[in-house]
Amino acid sequence: MNSVTSEATTYSRDTSSTLVSTIISPEGSLEVLSQDEVNRLRDTSSNGLHDILRRCALAVLNCGSQTDDSVSVLNAHKTFEIEVLQQDRGIRLKLDNAPGDAFVDGKMIRGIREHLSSVLRDIVYVANEIQNTPRFDLSTTEGTTNAVFHILRNAGALKASREPSLVTCWGGHSINREEYEYTKDVGYHLGLRELDISTGCGPGAMKGPMKGANVAHAKQRRKEGRYLGVSEPGIIAAESPNPIVNELIIMPDIEKRLEAFVRTAHGIIVFPGGVGTAEEILYLLGILLHPENEGLPFPVIFTGPAASAEYFQQIDEFITYTLGEEARARYTIIIDDPVEVARTMRAGIDEVAEFRRSHHDAFYYNWRLHIAPHFQQPFAPTHTNMTGLALHRNQPVHELAANLRRAFSGIVAGNVKKEGIEEIERDGPFRLTAEPELMHRLDALLTSFVAQGRMKLPGTDYVPCYTLSK
Amino acid sequence: MNSVTSEATTYSRDTSSTLVSTIISPEGSLEVLSQDEVNRLRDTSSNGLHDILRRCALAVLNCGSQTDDSVSVLNAHKTFEIEVLQQDRGIRLKLDNAPGDAFVDGKMIRGIREHLSSVLRDIVYVANEIQNTPRFDLSTTEGTTNAVFHILRNAGALKASREPSLVTCWGGHSINREEYEYTKDVGYHLGLRELDISTGCGPGAMKGPMKGANVAHAKQRRKEGRYLGVSEPGIIAAESPNPIVNELIIMPDIEKRLEAFVRTAHGIIVFPGGVGTAEEILYLLGILLHPENEGLPFPVIFTGPAASAEYFQQIDEFITYTLGEEARARYTIIIDDPVEVARTMRAGIDEVAEFRRSHHDAFYYNWRLHIAPHFQQPFAPTHTNMTGLALHRNQPVHELAANLRRAFSGIVAGNVKKEGIEEIERDGPFRLTAEPELMHRLDALLTSFVAQGRMKLPGTDYVPCYTLSK
Amino acid sequence: MNSVTSEATTYSRDTSSTLVSTIISPEGSLEVLSQDEVNRLRDTSSNGLHDILRRCALAVLNCGSQTDDSVSVLNAHKTFEIEVLQQDRGIRLKLDNAPGDAFVDGKMIRGIREHLSSVLRDIVYVANEIQNTPRFDLSTTEGTTNAVFHILRNAGALKASREPSLVTCWGGHSINREEYEYTKDVGYHLGLRELDISTGCGPGAMKGPMKGANVAHAKQRRKEGRYLGVSEPGIIAAESPNPIVNELIIMPDIEKRLEAFVRTAHGIIVFPGGVGTAEEILYLLGILLHPENEGLPFPVIFTGPAASAEYFQQIDEFITYTLGEEARARYTIIIDDPVEVARTMRAGIDEVAEFRRSHHDAFYYNWRLHIAPHFQQPFAPTHTNMTGLALHRNQPVHELAANLRRAFSGIVAGNVKKEGIEEIERDGPFRLTAEPELMHRLDALLTSFVAQGRMKLPGTDYVPCYTLSK
Amino acid sequence: MNSVTSEATTYSRDTSSTLVSTIISPEGSLEVLSQDEVNRLRDTSSNGLHDILRRCALAVLNCGSQTDDSVSVLNAHKTFEIEVLQQDRGIRLKLDNAPGDAFVDGKMIRGIREHLSSVLRDIVYVANEIQNTPRFDLSTTEGTTNAVFHILRNAGALKASREPSLVTCWGGHSINREEYEYTKDVGYHLGLRELDISTGCGPGAMKGPMKGANVAHAKQRRKEGRYLGVSEPGIIAAESPNPIVNELIIMPDIEKRLEAFVRTAHGIIVFPGGVGTAEEILYLLGILLHPENEGLPFPVIFTGPAASAEYFQQIDEFITYTLGEEARARYTIIIDDPVEVARTMRAGIDEVAEFRRSHHDAFYYNWRLHIAPHFQQPFAPTHTNMTGLALHRNQPVHELAANLRRAFSGIVAGNVKKEGIEEIERDGPFRLTAEPELMHRLDALLTSFVAQGRMKLPGTDYVPCYTLSK
Repeated sequence: MNSVTSEATTYSRDTSSTLVSTIISPEGSLEVLSQDEVNRLRDTSSNGLHDILRRCALAVLNCGSQTDDSVSVLNAHKTFEIEVLQQDRGIRLKLDNAPGDAFVDGKMIRGIREHLSSVLRDIVYVANEIQNTPRFDLSTTEGTTNAVFHILRNAGALKASREPSLVTCWGGHSINREEYEYTKDVGYHLGLRELDISTGCGPGAMKGPMKGANVAHAKQRRKEGRYLGVSEPGIIAAESPNPIVNELIIMPDIEKRLEAFVRTAHGIIVFPGGVGTAEEILYLLGILLHPENEGLPFPVIFTGPAASAEYFQQIDEFITYTLGEEARARYTIIIDDPVEVARTMRAGIDEVAEFRRSHHDAFYYNWRLHIAPHFQQPFAPTHTNMTGLALHRNQPVHELAANLRRAFSGIVAGNVKKEGIEEIERDGPFRLTAEPELMHRLDALLTSFVAQGRMKLPGTDYVPCYTLSK
Repeated sequence: MNSVTSEATTYSRDTSSTLVSTIISPEGSLEVLSQDEVNRLRDTSSNGLHDILRRCALAVLNCGSQTDDSVSVLNAHKTFEIEVLQQDRGIRLKLDNAPGDAFVDGKMIRGIREHLSSVLRDIVYVANEIQNTPRFDLSTTEGTTNAVFHILRNAGALKASREPSLVTCWGGHSINREEYEYTKDVGYHLGLRELDISTGCGPGAMKGPMKGANVAHAKQRRKEGRYLGVSEPGIIAAESPNPIVNELIIMPDIEKRLEAFVRTAHGIIVFPGGVGTAEEILYLLGILLHPENEGLPFPVIFTGPAASAEYFQQIDEFITYTLGEEARARYTIIIDDPVEVARTMRAGIDEVAEFRRSHHDAFYYNWRLHIAPHFQQPFAPTHTNMTGLALHRNQPVHELAANLRRAFSGIVAGNVKKEGIEEIERDGPFRLTAEPELMHRLDALLTSFVAQGRMKLPGTDYVPCYTLSK
Repeated sequence: MNSVTSEATTYSRDTSSTLVSTIISPEGSLEVLSQDEVNRLRDTSSNGLHDILRRCALAVLNCGSQTDDSVSVLNAHKTFEIEVLQQDRGIRLKLDNAPGDAFVDGKMIRGIREHLSSVLRDIVYVANEIQNTPRFDLSTTEGTTNAVFHILRNAGALKASREPSLVTCWGGHSINREEYEYTKDVGYHLGLRELDISTGCGPGAMKGPMKGANVAHAKQRRKEGRYLGVSEPGIIAAESPNPIVNELIIMPDIEKRLEAFVRTAHGIIVFPGGVGTAEEILYLLGILLHPENEGLPFPVIFTGPAASAEYFQQIDEFITYTLGEEARARYTIIIDDPVEVARTMRAGIDEVAEFRRSHHDAFYYNWRLHIAPHFQQPFAPTHTNMTGLALHRNQPVHELAANLRRAFSGIVAGNVKKEGIEEIERDGPFRLTAEPELMHRLDALLTSFVAQGRMKLPGTDYVPCYTLSK
Repeated sequence: MNSVTSEATTYSRDTSSTLVSTIISPEGSLEVLSQDEVNRLRDTSSNGLHDILRRCALAVLNCGSQTDDSVSVLNAHKTFEIEVLQQDRGIRLKLDNAPGDAFVDGKMIRGIREHLSSVLRDIVYVANEIQNTPRFDLSTTEGTTNAVFHILRNAGALKASREPSLVTCWGGHSINREEYEYTKDVGYHLGLRELDISTGCGPGAMKGPMKGANVAHAKQRRKEGRYLGVSEPGIIAAESPNPIVNELIIMPDIEKRLEAFVRTAHGIIVFPGGVGTAEEILYLLGILLHPENEGLPFPVIFTGPAASAEYFQQIDEFITYTLGEEARARYTIIIDDPVEVARTMRAGIDEVAEFRRSHHDAFYYNWRLHIAPHFQQPFAPTHTNMTGLALHRNQPVHELAANLRRAFSGIVAGNVKKEGIEEIERDGPFRLTAEPELMHRLDALLTSFVAQGRMKLPGTDYVPCYTLSK
């Protein structure tokens, strides 16, 4: 069997619990809401926040789920409902027909209560302070970067007193057991070196490093270890946050989520993955290749077990072909050596700390990193937009990176996101066009993702949501 | 000598320190600012926040000062300067020629570092999130109450997990030694009963209860005792926060400051004071007398040592004459019995807790309290406005209360606030007119305040900033 | 391969580190020693404590070791040395040629620094306050129980404020991967139910439950989860404490270690194991079967994955034959159902809490449990003593249990302990005699342990340290 | 009025509470006792600890008392009883007819609950681990110093991680208001400099510095400030610990109490006092003058308000006459300058830290300080012993210091301790003999103590418990 995210294989699930209705107290960040805020959260009209609250809350509660299909998650829980109540000690959440996996013998797991609180906090903040206010001009680079900063600060994610220690781990949610164990192993050695983890907070490569780091932090008695999960409303249902995540942040869209990753990370590790991972790699390299970011230290490591060596060779070749040798200099590939990965990352982060210190740059937010507008503006994965992408080498390298990023982003949406799936159901697969050689190589890459089962969680056959043509 | 605020008599000052220039880290709430926010704090133009930052910072640093005259404080420290720097671990503050009282052997007292941080936090928040945004309609009751809520929440002052325990203490900054010791004694017995203190955070009756409670909390090992100081930019220089204050909040104006007091307090104690205290009493009773607030439990105690009995008799008579017997039912007068005061307050607060619980009302913010617009709208103490006040009994009781409140507020401004002092210097004393009997009683009350030295800190003769006529 | 303790398979080891010489600060319990205590720890004469300190410290540092042979551990580290230094902030430990596994990039893992501190604490305490003083009469039941209490109290292991939550997990250090994963799974579900773990603190079934519980505690944000490891100088080298253990206690001998387990545990789970596990089962049942312990609630569960069902059937039959049906009523066998194990244990512990509460019994130490002298007196596994054991059913059940316990204890010593191994090397295998049917069944049991690889860590053929005869 | 210890003048007492019977949980150090220990605490025979427990507990509960006469305290509370109960979460204390001052509205002040726990802890430890065991040979210097170390370590008073910061303050329990305010003022400036306070834990000069430091620590947000009270069973009833004391230690006798002071202090301040203070000064100087202590840094400051200048002049002359100029070099007299006292002490302690660091000496216990046997052996204040004291200058200076110390110690006992008072009641005043000039000066000193009201708390006339003759 092409085995899977291994929560199921490691820990047995508590099959007796099915649906639970209860009233709980959120834990942590936002227990105090104004009457206006409560009203907006209860408002089921299109101006209201109830729908997004319900969707994100369901995703958080559904942490034991074995599917990555947002639509099927929502369909499976049509009777789920959530209501915000005002009480003497702050607010309470009334839940009806919540997925039983969030509970142990009828009592909600505390980590999940914290996640619900984070969901409330970010939905309220983004709606009131970012989106419905003239304060941030989201059409500009400054405005967008500032908005990302404020969302993160409001979430308490910018910690002034902390030394640089945050390693962002990217990689697939659908990886095999060996790869999964490898991500744990890397996380363990990062944790032994007092490093923290941020990921997209779903299963697979997004969970393994946290689990490994958690064991290592226990050995190092590091009680304040950070396990940062950064999600967005479109993807959260497909990649339910694992309860180990002790700081959950819901960014408004995929582009701000990616910006949150690269501005808070002190280093990035990429594990094997599918199109989502490819999207992240292109986003990162597209930024790092911008002339203004030359000389900015930013450790990037691609790594996996021996059996994944070929995967990275394919990626490496694709990048070299599309972005050139210069791109190659921005990352290191280390195969099958978790200790070496951890040591290299530790050394890279020490260099980052030194650089920031000498430039009086903040440790907690990389203001200096230049991100061009085409990496910040949200890309809507419609048929028109996908078809219109300019996929040829007759453009500056970072623009090609931006367009490739968008192509992969659209495929992710078609695979697992509600809007994307519905778009495909309605009008058939996306049609991408590219110059011949690039088409050929892109086809080879995507085909290998399908063959290796990296497109979707295993168990169903993968039906591509795209076609390629010259 | 009609002796005074007793910090000076209790603890000797460290006379060797004069002016200090240094760079410090703020402590606590806001160490993470965006580049925009830093820029606005540095902006010395009229759009910028530098001037208000400088004034509030100076007030906080000037905590050992023996004057209550804002203008003279500013004049005495013309060379003081403050600058915000961005650094690796967050921001730093560069201070030039800061008052030496804030330092011990060249190192700033930590409580004062926290106050500087609070000043930054509130100035940045109010300017960005309250004043320069369409979000809160400050011309409405809802908008104002909501704005007060957000400022307090941003300051971390709304604590969802805490049982009702906050006693607001009002009273004069200029009181005699016996009265001061009495306020300490009351604070001590409140503290023994696990109650917290909020005040206007200056000397006298604003400091005594905190010092007493601090000793009692030490005996009860209550490490999380709250000493909440609520100020506003116009008054802070005259009433420098004592470093015992461990939560300092700068509200934008006097009306929002008063609203912050009454919406967070679970009970209020009034000690002897002058016109500022009279303003507070009228504000409070004007609100409690509103028909919508009938039946709302709100313990209010007037108290002082035996020698102050006559003072409260005068107040009591003035209130009865102006607001009627009904007003009298809203407060209890207890003379010379700190234990009884503390017990009565504890019982009253237990009743408040019970009421909130049974109505699902928040403990931390009294949403239910109705505050009419004439208590919320800022009153500018100009000659025109003061002369125009309708001071007669031919109007609803709560409107008369509102107008009397404004009259006292104007006199406070003329006594100690920068704008008020300058207004008086330019155009002479305010001219108040009232119906004859009210005029007579008002005159008597104010004259007794002057005679008892309650208008200004002692040492100078008091020159009234008002005249009364029929 | 009949695979093994899975640290090696889960996390790669840091092979570059070999031997490390350094000076470290112990962390935690005992940083303050008197000059006398320091001197005794440095004393290398037979009166001194240096030898036992060196042996236990080596065991603690050797946590990555893949052997369970105490003699070979000591032989492999002949150049290791430890010295106690007195410094301004307390003591320091000077280490020469310490095993590199205790370090990450040259810095000792903090959990191991705490273990070193625990070793110091217990060696000093036992030598000074238990052994070389007339205070405790260790020949009596009262004296022994009191001594165990004092060692545990001094170690901070008796926590008055805690609800009953401690589950002792017994089982083999040499178990296969499937069994190991199962112990993790059970630990995970115990941890979700806010239960803590104590074990003998080596690998296998002594580590799995802690790792599982650690993940569950992270999900429940249970920062104060307890992972109690109880060892003794004779066994610690064979079963090096895993750094997840956050409370390490070194009891003076195996009998006091067993008493520490049963007096602090609120329930006990037995996983598959070898002779050591059999020793523990007989010890526990021998005590519970004592008439004075009738009616005392004490949840005991035997559990393993489906493939281990036969193992427990063998144990069950052996117990029924030797100790009778009554013994069977004292435990529940649950196969392949971690959730059910956790629920049953949680319910059993709630019953214990209820019982203690209604009898005013301490939660943290089971004074009421009666332990007969033949379970308390140390048994020296010499040839004479082993041969002399009365192994027949012609004696009270709890005496037979005591003698069988001793037989198994002797075999453990012959397998892995320094004294036992040396005894066997010198004089050949122990010779046990028993009545024929018992002999037969004992032979079958031991043979199955050998066949299943439960006697020793895999990789070497097992040479029995005993012979059986009628 | 020659006014007094100022608790009464600062805070009103809660006169309605009289005697309280209740069951409470001790807080803190020792909630876990063995059955043996509980039994000894309940044992009312002369072997048992019940009597000393009852006496010390009464002293702790009697913290609001206005008398310093141990006998009258005991007589006033003949119906007081205390019993130790064993419960599920540890022990409870059953109190009958306890003094009401320890309670607020029927609930015991938490600081006092902690003190009861400390009393239990030290009584149990001293009886079991120090007195009834051959472990410490109390007839030797080494044994005594070691015993003091162990009592302090068991009490958690030796804190390895802390920088030197402990200032011991000595002085009278019966001082006038001005002197009392001065001790607060000094404490305040010590606290601002992050220094901690230890005293004998009664009223007057033993309370003032703690109260001042408590305010300063609040301003510095120093939540872990130490207020160490060191008492002994004979004096505790006369000098009830103030609840601000957050570490209470009951040493077995006056000599070990003095040794605890000088081995833990990093510097000592002496305020005006009576014979007890004189005893302490002679003890300290007698030790510091020992040749082995030459060169050991130990800051000692005598200080008081301007009105107390003459007092220190008398002391200074007496010391110079009896111990010589060399003694004078060991202390600094600073009159009426709290800031200077605090600065000098801070500088002195920094020097101590430097010395300890460079000599690898512990910060928390001054092992290096040599204390000769005649300062360690308990002195029983009987008529025979008192009469036999060699009070002449024909002996080494440190022996004369030792004998003078004993003489003062006896007078303290005759004034306020139970045994001493009974001795005087039975056989009349102690008879001291000395050489003429010394007699003359001693007489002058003691007479001035009487005249200044420093012998006893005011209100009663002082009847000397001694006569002087040549």
